[in-house]
Amino acid sequence: MARATPFVHDVPAAEAFAAWVEACRDAGCPERLAVARVPLDDAVGRVTAEPVWAARSSPPFDAAAMDGIAVSAADTVGAGETSPVRLGRDRYEVVDTGDPMPPDRDAVVMREQVHWLGAGGEDDPADVELRAAAAPYQHVRSIGEDVSAAELLLPAGHRLRPVDVAAAGAAGMTELTVRRAPIVAVIPTGDEIRPIGADLKPGELPDTNSLMLAAQATEAGSEVVRHEVVPDDPPRIVEAVREAAAEADLVIVIAGSSAGRDDHTADVVAEAGTLAVHGVAVRPGHPVVLGVVAAAQRTIPILGAPGYPVSAALTFDIFAAPLLAMLEGAPPPDWPRAHARLARKLASNMGSDDWIRVRLGRVGGRLVATPLPRGAGVLTSLVRADGLLVVPAPLEGHHAGEEVEVRLLRGVGEIERTIVATGSHDLVLDLAASALRSGDPGIALASSNVGSLAGLAALRDGLCHVAGSHLLDPDTGEYTLPWIERLMPDHDLAVVRLTHREQGLIVAPGNPLGLREIRDLTRPGLRYVNRQRGAGTRVLLDHLLKAEGIEPGQVGGYAREEHTHLAVAAAVAAGRADCGLGVLAAARAFGLGFVPVTKEPYDLVLERASLDSELLTPLWELLASSAFRAEIDALGGYDTGETGRQIRP
Amino acid sequence: MARATPFVHDVPAAEAFAAWVEACRDAGCPERLAVARVPLDDAVGRVTAEPVWAARSSPPFDAAAMDGIAVSAADTVGAGETSPVRLGRDRYEVVDTGDPMPPDRDAVVMREQVHWLGAGGEDDPADVELRAAAAPYQHVRSIGEDVSAAELLLPAGHRLRPVDVAAAGAAGMTELTVRRAPIVAVIPTGDEIRPIGADLKPGELPDTNSLMLAAQATEAGSEVVRHEVVPDDPPRIVEAVREAAAEADLVIVIAGSSAGRDDHTADVVAEAGTLAVHGVAVRPGHPVVLGVVAAAQRTIPILGAPGYPVSAALTFDIFAAPLLAMLEGAPPPDWPRAHARLARKLASNMGSDDWIRVRLGRVGGRLVATPLPRGAGVLTSLVRADGLLVVPAPLEGHHAGEEVEVRLLRGVGEIERTIVATGSHDLVLDLAASALRSGDPGIALASSNVGSLAGLAALRDGLCHVAGSHLLDPDTGEYTLPWIERLMPDHDLAVVRLTHREQGLIVAPGNPLGLREIRDLTRPGLRYVNRQRGAGTRVLLDHLLKAEGIEPGQVGGYAREEHTHLAVAAAVAAGRADCGLGVLAAARAFGLGFVPVTKEPYDLVLERASLDSELLTPLWELLASSAFRAEIDALGGYDTGETGRQIRP
Repeated sequence: MARATPFVHDVPAAEAFAAWVEACRDAGCPERLAVARVPLDDAVGRVTAEPVWAARSSPPFDAAAMDGIAVSAADTVGAGETSPVRLGRDRYEVVDTGDPMPPDRDAVVMREQVHWLGAGGEDDPADVELRAAAAPYQHVRSIGEDVSAAELLLPAGHRLRPVDVAAAGAAGMTELTVRRAPIVAVIPTGDEIRPIGADLKPGELPDTNSLMLAAQATEAGSEVVRHEVVPDDPPRIVEAVREAAAEADLVIVIAGSSAGRDDHTADVVAEAGTLAVHGVAVRPGHPVVLGVVAAAQRTIPILGAPGYPVSAALTFDIFAAPLLAMLEGAPPPDWPRAHARLARKLASNMGSDDWIRVRLGRVGGRLVATPLPRGAGVLTSLVRADGLLVVPAPLEGHHAGEEVEVRLLRGVGEIERTIVATGSHDLVLDLAASALRSGDPGIALASSNVGSLAGLAALRDGLCHVAGSHLLDPDTGEYTLPWIERLMPDHDLAVVRLTHREQGLIVAPGNPLGLREIRDLTRPGLRYVNRQRGAGTRVLLDHLLKAEGIEPGQVGGYAREEHTHLAVAAAVAAGRADCGLGVLAAARAFGLGFVPVTKEPYDLVLERASLDSELLTPLWELLASSAFRAEIDALGGYDTGETGRQIRP
Repeated sequence: MARATPFVHDVPAAEAFAAWVEACRDAGCPERLAVARVPLDDAVGRVTAEPVWAARSSPPFDAAAMDGIAVSAADTVGAGETSPVRLGRDRYEVVDTGDPMPPDRDAVVMREQVHWLGAGGEDDPADVELRAAAAPYQHVRSIGEDVSAAELLLPAGHRLRPVDVAAAGAAGMTELTVRRAPIVAVIPTGDEIRPIGADLKPGELPDTNSLMLAAQATEAGSEVVRHEVVPDDPPRIVEAVREAAAEADLVIVIAGSSAGRDDHTADVVAEAGTLAVHGVAVRPGHPVVLGVVAAAQRTIPILGAPGYPVSAALTFDIFAAPLLAMLEGAPPPDWPRAHARLARKLASNMGSDDWIRVRLGRVGGRLVATPLPRGAGVLTSLVRADGLLVVPAPLEGHHAGEEVEVRLLRGVGEIERTIVATGSHDLVLDLAASALRSGDPGIALASSNVGSLAGLAALRDGLCHVAGSHLLDPDTGEYTLPWIERLMPDHDLAVVRLTHREQGLIVAPGNPLGLREIRDLTRPGLRYVNRQRGAGTRVLLDHLLKAEGIEPGQVGGYAREEHTHLAVAAAVAAGRADCGLGVLAAARAFGLGFVPVTKEPYDLVLERASLDSELLTPLWELLASSAFRAEIDALGGYDTGETGRQIRP
């Protein structure tokens, strides 16, 4: 097959979807799934294929709405405190709530208001006396109070919930006419893609996209058929697609992560059917392929999902989920939304819808959205996201502080019990997040690793609850305090010590290059891996270099920036760098060597007013617990002697 | 067993839940469910039992982020338009996006920017020329860009979503440690309760509560064991509870709908274990029983759910769902919320949380909440609800127009595509709702049957899009127009005719009492069933009585009010009334007799500005279609000659 030009179009999402639907129609794909009669038990989650009219009234009879006696209201006319009416045993019946009203009775008198004249009280079948008249239909639940026979109970195209099937049962139904569940076939492709659990050779990746897309389809109410991984061989992919199309209602082909792969997919679709769209104006998710494939006797829609995991996940939401809903005759999926203030300026591609993953937190009474990393390969950005913000194609972005609408991925209640920590990365924060949650699943600590300086700026701007900082002031040799006095002179801040920790050079196991001191970073050919600008560790390096009179340009790799200690250690562990500055715990996590350079405090900065807040109390309790301090000590390179101490009175 | 006093307490919901949890703890119930290692495929929906730390970095290697060539940035220093740098075949490798970076290469040059010197271009292994220097790590995805080994990927107590398991797979996991799914046993009780599908004798009811609670438990992530219906015999209920407790993590006993039944349940719980709470300050849902039961070797929580279906459903949400989440170690369920303006004054019981079901609609740009019927037995109120409004115990209610927070039961997107029709009830509206939805599942028509007059008031107050009205003006004999001129002189309104219809006396089949005219309603002993005040049909009756010089008090049953034509017909069909005024279609739906009285127009009133709105266009298209008119005609008693005509230019 000839290689297609990549990204033939950059079609706006709505237009791409419409083109896909039109291609399906033109090719004779079924517009709706087949109809089935199913027992009520199997109906939840399915979509009604026809309106449901009540077959019977509920309640099916006039019923007592109180425990007491059923009477004829006419018999009680004139009853009053001074003019009691006496009813003989044949003029009333004892009823419990829910009992059908006896014939010729049209009112209920509550048990408590009946004067039982028999010696045995209410269990004694004797006359009764009433001291108030009963109004007709008093304490009676009318037949059809809930639903009358022949009333519209549910429309067609309604996804059935537990309460719906119960109401249908009450209205006399035992079965409902629904669309059968859609069947989605998922076909992973790529020479480097291996089944999860297989031993991976260098360059190979586990097939996590199939797992994810299959689970997304299941959550959308579909049945899923998963195909084994197909190599990057178009004829074999065509064969797999044809095979899947014979029994599925939608085929999803997942490209490997290589950008060239979606061209295969486009070619495959063109070969096996009709290519409708190749490339959409959505980022991430750009290289989407939409079309139709023909198998024996039938034509069905096909979706080529990009191999980058964030793209794959969003592609499902944007294209597959609405199509599946359409096949079921249901309204398109609809997600809860909320408004939030944007934590920082957000630039966006004009010409593409940008799907930005954001963290959300309630800070100072307002919901704040902090954008997460935007790479299509950063699946953890979706894992950690509390919401999705779509910046539509015509916009260049948003200003900091602008109010935006966000699609929620977590409940607002959960978000409100989340401690937002922004700033420097330290493993103790991860440990604290985990420990807090174990103690009370309702609590979350979400830390954004943006570096110490950006963390303090976020605190200043009311965008986080605590800022993790270990900023050295080169003039005084003091940490953090001089910075906050300079940056936030008007804020009444508290500073709580999280820990002291050792910073040093993370090096290959056994320190094969024999690195001993900062001056060694200038060795020719040495590959250093740096932290990003504004990170406390970067400030520390710059300070150390300056003290030694070394120019940054003398350090090979100074320009390579990572955002966490662990990312630095990972680069060294993979042999892609020779060393980087970081904490002992990160070196230990990768079994690497470590050359101590300095010991520094790591502090949490916060508004003094929030010290005693309900939200933060569990954090202070945790820092005070000796069990947690022991956990920190076990990481190595930490000193918990001052952990939890308020160092700025 | 002795009969317990009903409603021992009226415990606030939060307090009741806390007391239940404490009773569980005291009795030695397990605090958390057992832990299991499950493959990633089985992990979605389960809750992590321990934090998940990445076992491996993702990507596990530095990878090319573009298609092109991998180079050593140092080799390209000085390259420019006028000073190209030539690289030999051994100084670069061709790479696709996602490929691991070769050793000693630290940058990628995009394919488009490479000048291939070989005759065969990019497929020809020859030297290349670069006209720009490559920055180190340009177009390289760093190892661990997504997640670094040893980083906290997921906390404990996290309910796993598709994206989480995919990220875990990318981080090297093939299994996860989760809590097993909770097992919920559902035990229906009540002499009058019969399995769904069984033939029902008079006074019997189908077991819809088991169906509903089981489905709710399934949706909450539990496995469910359903017990057959147990008669109202406490020793047998105790036996069933003990049996269920041996294998379940939560037992739910459903009382019949009789108020006395929960006393059985309380006694059963006291007998089989410990009664913690009997009666909570929640309406509906009041007669809840919470406790602990002991079976062989174990004690587990038990919930006695009230028999009224709305109470049963809410009881699950308020008590069972948070308990199940607790057993799984997950945060309590959290529902999306929105703010809405209350359509009318809402009185509430002080001392109880009132759970009010509301319809929501976007009218004039604002979300409006209209309360639905409040009876604990009106399950359709929950079916039709778009949201739940909780009026907390200390409040007496809300004013009309007050902004309230509502828990959403439908997506806001769906709500925004809902035509809110408030006013008189007519079957044609049900028919239209159904037809609109069949044509486009994204559209809904929600009609609230409050009567013509209340409908016009709702329109005046901006609470609905259209008001269905057939209000007769006795002075002029005209319908609707005089009323709107009186009620809404300042509004620019349009009126669209829905239909003409026949009103008459709905009587038993064959009209055994030989009713012929309005005067016959004064016959002694005759049981009339009326419509509510403000209903057009009530206005019509009052007009007809006045014309005949009849006082309302002369009509037996005048005080019995129903809210729809169908409810009137249902009462006649059940033999609980002899006749009522209503439309022919309602009589036909129940196979009843009908004595025509008058023919009247039924109109839709709306703001003229909304006539051409996108929301309402499908309705006008529907009314213009001959297929829909034929459907109306088939109901009987309708005349579609003027259907869709704008009668007030």
